[in-house]
Amino acid sequence: MTKREHVMYDFSAEPGNNELTVKEGETVTVLNQVHTGSDWLAKWDEEWDDARSTGGYGETTGEEEGEATGRNTHTHMKISLNKFAFSKIPNPEVYLLAKLPPKGKDRLAIYMGDVGPVWLYPQSPLDCVVADPKKGSKMYGLKSYIEYQVTPNTTNRPVNHRYKHFDWLYERLLEKFGSAIPIPSLPDKQVTGRFEEEFIKMRMERLQGWMCRMCRHPVVSNSDVFQLFLTYRDEKEWKTGKRRAEKDECVGPMVFSLIDPEAPELDIIEVEQKCELFSRFTKEMDDGVKDLLNVGNIHWKRCTGPLRKEYQKIGKAFQNLSSVFNTSGYTGEATLTDALTAAGKTYEEISQIVAEQPRKDLHFLMETNNEYKGLLGCFPDTIGVHKAAIEKVREGDKMVAAGKINTQDKGTMAKRISIMCYSLQAEMNHFHSNRIYDYNRVMQLYLEEQIRFYETVRGGQEREGSMKR
Amino acid sequence: MTKREHVMYDFSAEPGNNELTVKEGETVTVLNQVHTGSDWLAKWDEEWDDARSTGGYGETTGEEEGEATGRNTHTHMKISLNKFAFSKIPNPEVYLLAKLPPKGKDRLAIYMGDVGPVWLYPQSPLDCVVADPKKGSKMYGLKSYIEYQVTPNTTNRPVNHRYKHFDWLYERLLEKFGSAIPIPSLPDKQVTGRFEEEFIKMRMERLQGWMCRMCRHPVVSNSDVFQLFLTYRDEKEWKTGKRRAEKDECVGPMVFSLIDPEAPELDIIEVEQKCELFSRFTKEMDDGVKDLLNVGNIHWKRCTGPLRKEYQKIGKAFQNLSSVFNTSGYTGEATLTDALTAAGKTYEEISQIVAEQPRKDLHFLMETNNEYKGLLGCFPDTIGVHKAAIEKVREGDKMVAAGKINTQDKGTMAKRISIMCYSLQAEMNHFHSNRIYDYNRVMQLYLEEQIRFYETVRGGQEREGSMKR
Repeated sequence: MTKREHVMYDFSAEPGNNELTVKEGETVTVLNQVHTGSDWLAKWDEEWDDARSTGGYGETTGEEEGEATGRNTHTHMKISLNKFAFSKIPNPEVYLLAKLPPKGKDRLAIYMGDVGPVWLYPQSPLDCVVADPKKGSKMYGLKSYIEYQVTPNTTNRPVNHRYKHFDWLYERLLEKFGSAIPIPSLPDKQVTGRFEEEFIKMRMERLQGWMCRMCRHPVVSNSDVFQLFLTYRDEKEWKTGKRRAEKDECVGPMVFSLIDPEAPELDIIEVEQKCELFSRFTKEMDDGVKDLLNVGNIHWKRCTGPLRKEYQKIGKAFQNLSSVFNTSGYTGEATLTDALTAAGKTYEEISQIVAEQPRKDLHFLMETNNEYKGLLGCFPDTIGVHKAAIEKVREGDKMVAAGKINTQDKGTMAKRISIMCYSLQAEMNHFHSNRIYDYNRVMQLYLEEQIRFYETVRGGQEREGSMKR
Repeated sequence: MTKREHVMYDFSAEPGNNELTVKEGETVTVLNQVHTGSDWLAKWDEEWDDARSTGGYGETTGEEEGEATGRNTHTHMKISLNKFAFSKIPNPEVYLLAKLPPKGKDRLAIYMGDVGPVWLYPQSPLDCVVADPKKGSKMYGLKSYIEYQVTPNTTNRPVNHRYKHFDWLYERLLEKFGSAIPIPSLPDKQVTGRFEEEFIKMRMERLQGWMCRMCRHPVVSNSDVFQLFLTYRDEKEWKTGKRRAEKDECVGPMVFSLIDPEAPELDIIEVEQKCELFSRFTKEMDDGVKDLLNVGNIHWKRCTGPLRKEYQKIGKAFQNLSSVFNTSGYTGEATLTDALTAAGKTYEEISQIVAEQPRKDLHFLMETNNEYKGLLGCFPDTIGVHKAAIEKVREGDKMVAAGKINTQDKGTMAKRISIMCYSLQAEMNHFHSNRIYDYNRVMQLYLEEQIRFYETVRGGQEREGSMKR
């Protein structure tokens, strides 16, 4: 599958998007050649459609333009193109065969829990609040930006961060933990500031969601770089910490060197089976989540668009008929025309309720699934590292025969792939427990809001119905 | 506006459709030249669309084809074409200037009620039940037909009638009363017998509605021809009665000669104002009714089509996610997957409820408005007779000057237009009281069913919600 290709055009990676900056004339190694020729174009189109149909569920057209979330479809397409064409899956060889430094203080503990291997969770979970977005400026007001206040529950002391700081944090986390832990992308950057307030609110909500997820991860939340981001006390500490984090050499597959599970070594067949199971599960969940986002998106549009208009039209039709009846000059018309007018108004209210409902229930369901879509999108890369390692270990005998490694190296590789597998299991168990918590919560809220919706509409109808009895 | 045209093609009127049979070479007088050239075609197209969008609200496409009502769009178009091009508005001159025969027994009484001039209503209202459609055959089984049992509340004795008998009755009523009373068309004839049972049921329902409306009319229900239809005792009585009815000469505008209101003569200005008022009201109500039918039709299609499918898809998406979650191998998954499956099933139930709802509430609202659409479509012709009479009376002075009539004739015309106006007022008051009764009833039923709908859905959601708490 691996293939070398010459770069035909310059491409500048956007920071935080897991892209690769390439220049014309360079040579890249294509690990994952998904598409060529017309297939390539077809996939491109698909991605484009996908971005429009599942990504922008808050987007509406025409008169509701003001509600747009400012999602940048074009950028999204570029990302997808870049992601599909090249993969930055790190080579696990560096870890499998490396001479490891002596074990330091920053060990990543895995122990055997009820559900199997699990990360060591802190006594009290870390949490933080992202709030109070403020416009800042520099260069004598020439450049302006939004600064968010981030307050962790440990210090209860707010720190200020711009989007680009979040982006820096994301890059560090991805670099350091990406081989072992899926690090979801930040909410997309925006191009135009057309609907600024709405956009800032939405971005803050999503940054909050992203930070929450990172806080809930025992490995990520406990890392130096994450703690620095949340608790730095002054500009100096921030800058020193940044430099230190950027110089961290224990990144990529080397992160596995920090892990030392106290558990029996797994054989390669078991490792491969588990890897396959997780790969299949995350792929299938990804499909299910995208399916739900798709139909949710369509339903959202129908509720705020045609359905709203239809109820409005029914309401207007009743009221029109009432107006006509009022001109009959016939006595004893009032009861009917009053009832018709009231029915018409009830329908206009229903129209309003129906249009506002998605923001009350679908919104949270969509946000959660969107977050999971992002998270699930990271698994192929993370699992890819494991699959590449398995392949390498399977070649062990050949490598020994070719004199590339010795028998001891082969034993080391087998031990290390077992460690990697414990890490993957701990991560999957972390994912599952979070998933169950998140989906239980979102389904409960969704169904409660749905009940409230039907109750509200029925209430309106009943008031109307009782008038006529 | 009046214009003579040569007939360019043969056209055979379908019985019961208020059409005109014409032969190539004949000359017709066009009273109401609505369209010419490309406008004509445009209107034809409009009518075609109209027939599809407002007439066939029970019609669905694709998988719901089995629910079609068998409405014949093509026939409908021909009718419209014929109606728009030519008008059979009878010339009121025959009545205005006729030597009237001595007053017979079949007087049509008008008295002054609280709301103005009203027909004399019977002590106990006539009613009948159309039921028990049976297949009959003749010519040794070569020709088969459906026979309906019609039972009036007066004799409680059923008589059998085929559609063509109803059609014959309609023709007689239209001929005799059409100048004074709008006689709505029968439910359309069907071309193919593809969905026979469904169609027969629907036709019976509509024939019942038509008979009910005729029974409720004090003039129509009391007429010899209508009584014959409901109460004939044997084939001989039916045939004799038929012959007599067909020979009735007191038809068309001559029906006004049966009317003798005991009320002061109205002057021509008042007559014209009332005529104008009724004309405007019925036209505006016609617009309002068509508007409601239109939006009702769209809503019907949305409920049985896209909305049903959407809820189904949401249901399926939840259930799919549940299935995927079940494969996680993680313990403690059951509560969530059970809840997701139940939510999915609830949504599939909602999908069903939403799709079935139109038959429960919209159906009756649509049937009633469809009936009124038919009734209102007769007013232009009925009012046309009055307008033509007003024009004739306004020409009175000129006609005297030209020696066409004498001053006494002019007085007779003035008196008779006043009688016509009382008849029109009685008819409008009859229409208004029926309209108020019908719309009160249909709105109440509609709103009650709507409340029941939201209650049912909410009930399902609540059962689901409580599971998850």
